[in-house]
Amino acid sequence: MALKLFELVGTDAGRPFSPFCWRSRLALAHKGLSAESIPWRFTEKSALAPYGSEKVPVMLDRDRAVADSWIIATYLEDTYPDRPSLFGGAGGRAMARFLNAWGDIAIVGGIFPLIIADIPNNLATVDAAYFRQSREARFGKRLEEIMAPRDQAVVGFRKSLEPLRQTLKTQPFLGGDAPNYADYIVFGGFQWARVVSPFRLLEETDSVYAWRERLLDAFDGLARNSPGYPV
Amino acid sequence: MALKLFELVGTDAGRPFSPFCWRSRLALAHKGLSAESIPWRFTEKSALAPYGSEKVPVMLDRDRAVADSWIIATYLEDTYPDRPSLFGGAGGRAMARFLNAWGDIAIVGGIFPLIIADIPNNLATVDAAYFRQSREARFGKRLEEIMAPRDQAVVGFRKSLEPLRQTLKTQPFLGGDAPNYADYIVFGGFQWARVVSPFRLLEETDSVYAWRERLLDAFDGLARNSPGYPV
Repeated sequence: MALKLFELVGTDAGRPFSPFCWRSRLALAHKGLSAESIPWRFTEKSALAPYGSEKVPVMLDRDRAVADSWIIATYLEDTYPDRPSLFGGAGGRAMARFLNAWGDIAIVGGIFPLIIADIPNNLATVDAAYFRQSREARFGKRLEEIMAPRDQAVVGFRKSLEPLRQTLKTQPFLGGDAPNYADYIVFGGFQWARVVSPFRLLEETDSVYAWRERLLDAFDGLARNSPGYPV
Repeated sequence: MALKLFELVGTDAGRPFSPFCWRSRLALAHKGLSAESIPWRFTEKSALAPYGSEKVPVMLDRDRAVADSWIIATYLEDTYPDRPSLFGGAGGRAMARFLNAWGDIAIVGGIFPLIIADIPNNLATVDAAYFRQSREARFGKRLEEIMAPRDQAVVGFRKSLEPLRQTLKTQPFLGGDAPNYADYIVFGGFQWARVVSPFRLLEETDSVYAWRERLLDAFDGLARNSPGYPV
């Protein structure tokens, strides 16, 4: 297979969980491209060194390496222009940059403290130790302390989804009638949470819940068929 | 002139201030269209009744009335397809829906408590009374109480702009290399504040400040030449 994608996993190599890798995985599916998945773990920095990156996703297209989910998306759009568009034109490509930032801050950043202490349960000892040390240094407290108020904190997270909820009042996807990269940006965060944590982020009556269901079903259930907790 | 736009004003008919009317005014400029401005005040509900709306903007295109800033934008895009695109394609149009919701919630909703008690200073007695009564009922407190903590609250507002700031790291406008409707959505809120309040929303070192400067200068200074406070 010409395409390969390094994807973050833990003890189970068949359970990729990075929100950024999921963006790329869904972008590939949108383009109708299949890629060989290369499982990668937090402490395997040396495996990525030849490609000039310290983080996943890294995609290989024959002898070309492309790192960073946004760069991968634009690479796929430019390299495979005859396949379904990820952005729906130049305006969508520019605005998806904003969605990418909102996805990083409100979704990935918003979910992280709600699931952070569940993540090491998915990791081998060496990776769990690396994760705990690096993230506790970043937040300045223990993972368990960060996550402790999640039953209250999730209320604020749900409130922060209001722009998404407003959008879904008039269209089924951020991309309009069908999903595009804007949806994969945001959904990647929810899929990450689903894979690593049993914590319920959304109420069933929420239109964002229904939207997530549609994304779980996309591409013949690509995301739903990947192992995870019930949502 | 074939096009007319009802715009919210106060005592000064030449000082339109609604964030939603500014979205439409800039959309018209983007399309290279001029429209006669019809000054409208909060208590002049009867002037809009024939057009089936209680709020501005309402745009008249000969005998056709179009209400609501989003509907006006899509109407202009569809009616004048040969003029510069407001959305840059179908993807941009879909994603602009999200920007519209974010602009309503984070920008208009974020700025409102920071300037709310300054607004009546711009209004005639009858409109000021209407504004005070309706908004105090909505918030459940006096305008002055809502605005009192603004020196602290503005810190949170500035923080909420982070997705915009991240986007501006790689492109000068939300629309990419040039502004489009995504920019007008967000800028409309800043222009509203500039017209009605001396309160300084942004620090000069902020990339959002520089972006706002670019929008103030767009279309030969359309927004900057409209009366307002220094920003």
